[in-house]
Amino acid sequence: MEKLIFISNDDGFDAEGIKQLSEMVRSFGDVFVVAPTGGRSGASMSITSTMPVRNKHIKYEPAEEGKGSLTVWSCSGTPDDCVKMAFEKLLPKTPDVVLGGINHGDNCAVNAHYSGTMAVALEGCVKRIPSIAFSSGYMDADTDFSYMKQSVQKIVKMVLDEGLPAGVCLNVNVPAVKDLKGIKVCKMGMGEWKDEWIEKDHPRGGKYYWIAGYYEPFISDDKESDSWAFDNGYVAVTPIQLDLTAYQMIDKLRTELE
Amino acid sequence: MEKLIFISNDDGFDAEGIKQLSEMVRSFGDVFVVAPTGGRSGASMSITSTMPVRNKHIKYEPAEEGKGSLTVWSCSGTPDDCVKMAFEKLLPKTPDVVLGGINHGDNCAVNAHYSGTMAVALEGCVKRIPSIAFSSGYMDADTDFSYMKQSVQKIVKMVLDEGLPAGVCLNVNVPAVKDLKGIKVCKMGMGEWKDEWIEKDHPRGGKYYWIAGYYEPFISDDKESDSWAFDNGYVAVTPIQLDLTAYQMIDKLRTELE
Repeated sequence: MEKLIFISNDDGFDAEGIKQLSEMVRSFGDVFVVAPTGGRSGASMSITSTMPVRNKHIKYEPAEEGKGSLTVWSCSGTPDDCVKMAFEKLLPKTPDVVLGGINHGDNCAVNAHYSGTMAVALEGCVKRIPSIAFSSGYMDADTDFSYMKQSVQKIVKMVLDEGLPAGVCLNVNVPAVKDLKGIKVCKMGMGEWKDEWIEKDHPRGGKYYWIAGYYEPFISDDKESDSWAFDNGYVAVTPIQLDLTAYQMIDKLRTELE
Repeated sequence: MEKLIFISNDDGFDAEGIKQLSEMVRSFGDVFVVAPTGGRSGASMSITSTMPVRNKHIKYEPAEEGKGSLTVWSCSGTPDDCVKMAFEKLLPKTPDVVLGGINHGDNCAVNAHYSGTMAVALEGCVKRIPSIAFSSGYMDADTDFSYMKQSVQKIVKMVLDEGLPAGVCLNVNVPAVKDLKGIKVCKMGMGEWKDEWIEKDHPRGGKYYWIAGYYEPFISDDKESDSWAFDNGYVAVTPIQLDLTAYQMIDKLRTELE
């Protein structure tokens, strides 16, 4: 039976990343896209609670020899809204896999928390479907992502064949280098952003601020971390879990609080 | 030395929850609030990347006998922006603790992922400051939260005295009952939302959707979960970690992918 692959992103339905990812995986089955009307960088798992959301059918391409059909919708909401909307209102059946991306820009380390691409995979995880977020170090709008096609297909095939445990998804970050060194399975790196705000004078008085800055890992040579693998030419694959519980703290807290 | 307590939320700087939380903890030191201009429910850890952000000084109340000063700013961005803005541009020094809330509505179980209140604590965690998110089952705008004062003060005091390990924060959910049964330390419950979209006819054609629905745990009587504790009259305290790595999957993925 034909597989059904659901894709969303946080750069918008017409971004190169999602278009190229869709083509890369049509060899595995039918592809169904519901993605934001435009850029939603840094959307995290936000949902649209103060405004209504609308959907628009963009296109349908029938299946051809060797590749499945392609259906594309846009949604005015967040990446997370797109997944929720697709599952309840748009998808013809439950998909076999949920993909986020390809994001224009990496989502290594704690940045996975801010990422709308990762939100797609985490919401897929809430829905108990095997899910993968793909991000590239190339940020340009017209990037050719074909250099990562082999890695994408290998990882998607593995997940379609083997599945993933409930509550676990993958965060895949492919560096902006043409000669990739292979795949490295990693842990999430820890670090923080520095100089986070650019301050400007407002024409009518006062200041306004743009979020910006640079990311700095706490440990720069942590070879187990995704950010180290990414910085050193590897495709970084980080297994991510939905359950945030810090189990190691439970006994101590019981002593203190109960 | 006087403690400095930073507070933000996702209901806005003028919500009852944040005002009452500020007063509850002034006995521990100076309180500094930077909170959104209005409601940001479901903001998750989103940051404002496509618009600039502005801040406004709202008020300053000097310290009195037995209680610290109170400083309040509003910020046009998300709850996460508020924390980032406060740390880089507004706080006079690094705070001793970061508090989110009190949220009007609970953030138990996987809903912690969507919560802007929890985002405040998680961003505090990124900044390596002990952090706590407080939410109440009472959703009304004019709620009197004094019924949870004792629990709030006990938990804040414990965290000020003992700290929390780097990368761990607390998610505290207090049910909407006056006779609380005490504190229960929990794990994050797992479940999903049902009937997530209310569909309406648009006056100029087509449909629009409001996010809504109801939450359903996968296992309704999971007595270790925060949602069970909350539903049964306990103050649910869940230790939450910033590191999302599913360590148990690393070896298997290495075999499959490297």
